[in-house]
Amino acid sequence: MTMQENAESLLVGVDVGGTKIAAGVVDARGQVLSRVQIPTDTDGAEKTLQSIATGIVETMRAAGVEREQIRGIGLGIPGEVNPESGVGLFAANLHWRNVPVKRWLEDALGMPCAIENDVSVAALGEHLYGAGRTERDSKADTMVYLSLGTGVAAKAIIGGKLHRGSHGLAGEIGHTVFVPDGPLCACGARGCLEALAAGPALAKRAREAIQAGHVSLLQEQDQATLTAHHLFSAIAQGDNLSRQIVAGAATHLAYAVYLLAMTFDPQVIVLGGGLAHEENPLIEGIRAGVAQWIERSPVFRVIWHANMLRLTALKRDVGILGAAALLADGETV
Amino acid sequence: MTMQENAESLLVGVDVGGTKIAAGVVDARGQVLSRVQIPTDTDGAEKTLQSIATGIVETMRAAGVEREQIRGIGLGIPGEVNPESGVGLFAANLHWRNVPVKRWLEDALGMPCAIENDVSVAALGEHLYGAGRTERDSKADTMVYLSLGTGVAAKAIIGGKLHRGSHGLAGEIGHTVFVPDGPLCACGARGCLEALAAGPALAKRAREAIQAGHVSLLQEQDQATLTAHHLFSAIAQGDNLSRQIVAGAATHLAYAVYLLAMTFDPQVIVLGGGLAHEENPLIEGIRAGVAQWIERSPVFRVIWHANMLRLTALKRDVGILGAAALLADGETV
Repeated sequence: MTMQENAESLLVGVDVGGTKIAAGVVDARGQVLSRVQIPTDTDGAEKTLQSIATGIVETMRAAGVEREQIRGIGLGIPGEVNPESGVGLFAANLHWRNVPVKRWLEDALGMPCAIENDVSVAALGEHLYGAGRTERDSKADTMVYLSLGTGVAAKAIIGGKLHRGSHGLAGEIGHTVFVPDGPLCACGARGCLEALAAGPALAKRAREAIQAGHVSLLQEQDQATLTAHHLFSAIAQGDNLSRQIVAGAATHLAYAVYLLAMTFDPQVIVLGGGLAHEENPLIEGIRAGVAQWIERSPVFRVIWHANMLRLTALKRDVGILGAAALLADGETV
Repeated sequence: MTMQENAESLLVGVDVGGTKIAAGVVDARGQVLSRVQIPTDTDGAEKTLQSIATGIVETMRAAGVEREQIRGIGLGIPGEVNPESGVGLFAANLHWRNVPVKRWLEDALGMPCAIENDVSVAALGEHLYGAGRTERDSKADTMVYLSLGTGVAAKAIIGGKLHRGSHGLAGEIGHTVFVPDGPLCACGARGCLEALAAGPALAKRAREAIQAGHVSLLQEQDQATLTAHHLFSAIAQGDNLSRQIVAGAATHLAYAVYLLAMTFDPQVIVLGGGLAHEENPLIEGIRAGVAQWIERSPVFRVIWHANMLRLTALKRDVGILGAAALLADGETV
């Protein structure tokens, strides 16, 4: 392939996280040609932007491509952004407030940049390259992406476009109160879905139960580093406490899936995030909970179909591919 | 105004109900030039279509306009429709299944027709002509319409367009279960919002309480014709039972408003339908319930603003104006 053939056909996708930055070169067919991961320097916005720029330059070098071949750079930011101005408005993990990401990177690198919220980016990535495909292998007109990981958040693609809402907060099911007076959430409310069913919530519930004297295989684990994945492993070994905690969270998440289906009437709901990379007891519990809603609600039965709920197809590449999707043809948002 | 100036600048909007058909001529500025109301003949689809055609012809005569001045006819149907084919798929009150509304009326009247579900039509009407306006007097990019009457249903306008979803069922909050094992809903599920908070549900709850021996001013009313409006009047006279029933329904509706706001992040939420034509104890209860969610949820506080929740501006004309909006410039859906 000559440089000429390749001119401006490639994209760089950057997944900016609180601890690490993953950057990749993506071709027109959605293939990731290089993956580079570097630590996020959070010692001030300037340093963070410099580490992002370093990741971009390194992944281009790893893919063996020149600046002239790159059409643009897309970035997924863990927080609130203004996609028009390209300003990172607020990102707790990056300690960002009103950081002019787009301007800084375009000045530094001389390539067009686009930024979006990381969950939105993941939704766009699954829609364009991943699980958001209908039976006839076309992109779903209406798709809901539900991220299950250290947080819980949803984003909808409607009419093929990301639905942001007035403040970019559309799909904030994670901070919707499901249990008034439930456990305190990081957002300040009580009983949000995220406080009931995100990974850290499961681990916290297990730690508290063990401290309260419940017997569990999880007692053998270091309590400080307990994760939802430890609960999944314990369930495989017959641990009752883990089973109960995961089942409780799955019930809430199944209600969220039901609500999102009733609200958006989508073709596809994609479960993404670290807790949905493969089938596990949480996913099984969600499927079981959804089956109960199918049983109960005739309207839901019309909306639902056997292939509606899917796990992420892009898994760990969703951040890179989704960020690239910000600049892909027909996916400008 | 000469006929020439007026050529094809007018629309006919038809609100097809189970008991009556309202038809009106609407001008380019959204003024209703004539209103005709006739009974719906539900003795077979052919008869119903004939009564619709009669209503259209009569309202044109009432407005003094000729066929040549009419650009098209929009119809709101109380049920499921296919807007592309113009087929009324299912309408319980009309006893319709797969009725070729568009083809029949276009053949009979020689004017282009468009059909949509009646709640969708109301949402489009409020968006184009009514309460769906932002502060700067432009149309809301994202607007949610929540209909409160004999049924409860929501429809969202996203990016200025009606969001239908895969089956035209997007926004089915009315048939979303809020109270598992709650009262039986007409849809077959238990504890749907509609079974908890629609007009007939309020009247039913009052009747049941009175039969069970509760004391209420409503005992003076004919129990068979009791409506939510009787409960509102009784509350004004200090009736405790009515107050409790309406407050309970308002709590569920406030949660629905909260859910819709968190899901769509809209600029505007319009309450329409017969229970939202003016301030009343149900609306007051919804506002009070929303105030509690504002108190509880920091994310909701970002999404919410003082002028978010509005009552219908079009009231009884919403069906005519909304149906006309199906064919208005820039509002094709």
